[in-house]
Amino acid sequence: MKQLAASASLRDEFPIFGNLDDASLGRLTATALWRRYDAHEAVMNQEEACDGLMKVTQGRLRVYMQNESGKEITLYRLYPGDACVMTASCLLHSMQVDFLIEAEIETIVILIPTTYLADVSQRYPSLKDSLNEIVRLRFSQVTWVVRQIVFSPMPVRIAEFLIEQSTLRETNDLLISHEEIASDLGSAREVISRILKYFQEEGLITQSRRRISLIDKENLKKKIV
Amino acid sequence: MKQLAASASLRDEFPIFGNLDDASLGRLTATALWRRYDAHEAVMNQEEACDGLMKVTQGRLRVYMQNESGKEITLYRLYPGDACVMTASCLLHSMQVDFLIEAEIETIVILIPTTYLADVSQRYPSLKDSLNEIVRLRFSQVTWVVRQIVFSPMPVRIAEFLIEQSTLRETNDLLISHEEIASDLGSAREVISRILKYFQEEGLITQSRRRISLIDKENLKKKIV
Repeated sequence: MKQLAASASLRDEFPIFGNLDDASLGRLTATALWRRYDAHEAVMNQEEACDGLMKVTQGRLRVYMQNESGKEITLYRLYPGDACVMTASCLLHSMQVDFLIEAEIETIVILIPTTYLADVSQRYPSLKDSLNEIVRLRFSQVTWVVRQIVFSPMPVRIAEFLIEQSTLRETNDLLISHEEIASDLGSAREVISRILKYFQEEGLITQSRRRISLIDKENLKKKIV
Repeated sequence: MKQLAASASLRDEFPIFGNLDDASLGRLTATALWRRYDAHEAVMNQEEACDGLMKVTQGRLRVYMQNESGKEITLYRLYPGDACVMTASCLLHSMQVDFLIEAEIETIVILIPTTYLADVSQRYPSLKDSLNEIVRLRFSQVTWVVRQIVFSPMPVRIAEFLIEQSTLRETNDLLISHEEIASDLGSAREVISRILKYFQEEGLITQSRRRISLIDKENLKKKIV
């Protein structure tokens, strides 16, 4: 992680700071941290805690959970413009969730630490509303994950994942391992491999080492609905 | 569902109303609904919407999700003293979660509809904080469910469920069907039956029609850790 110099005003970057007085905004600007993370670098884990409001300006973050043996599941991703409120903060003191965050690609974020932000949000109820709104948005995303895990059969979830990644990367050739898909979906590599083999036999994809090519996206999409 | 007469003051029932002025509390009291639900009655579904702050005074509510084909998973339960903030409310307008709520046994709740509550919470930031705190608590419970589904093997989840139900009902003889356990854990009846058969062979439980008896709770608990 590398500290960067501020390259825009917080008022431009955070619409939710729109109505703050200049003094408050000045103090928030003084505490704000601009950071660049390398691809696959940890943004938040046991060693790297960060606390406050974070906004992605470039790149992509992945928010996930992990168990002791390293098994993972992705909860949601944050794209440029997305904000999240980091846990362990006094803004959110009852949230005992153990999310981890990593940069999936090179990513630039602005972090507003809790210290002064908590003070300002006490004086600006509309700001506090906005911060709580962000938490609720993440809540519905996590609920969506529950719904997916419980109610969607794995082939549907894999098809959805492949289409999403193809859109995201703007290519039909995905350099991705079965292990990575398993981590994302909270499944086992063997399960993923079996279903991808079935997709291949159905003529929906082709596979070579660490590469999956979507050759019939229309029919792959039909797996989803 | 049956409307009941108020049997206590809101200030006693809701500590979070502690600092409200008498006029505000009076108006909230006028809008408050005391309701009794029968066992297995729907508290919130497509037909029965309710909107606002709800507190359980007696009984037990189950909050769950359901898909089109009727498959279910329990997200959390609410016991006497527990409160929840109902979705679809203007307090929580970004929450697009489709939770359903049912009374598991005869249950009495107090519902404070959103209409006037939203107005009061604008004037009392500490009240709004408390409402948001309730949402965040439910958020961590849903996150816990994700962790369970993804990371805990089904035998562990079933053992945990049986112990929990035994504590809740204060008996080692549970009148419960495999189907009900499957609904609670978001699994299939066949999966539950197979694992319970294994528990039986291990001498942890005995089974007869719709009855599961925990005969070796100590060793069943060891399945959990």
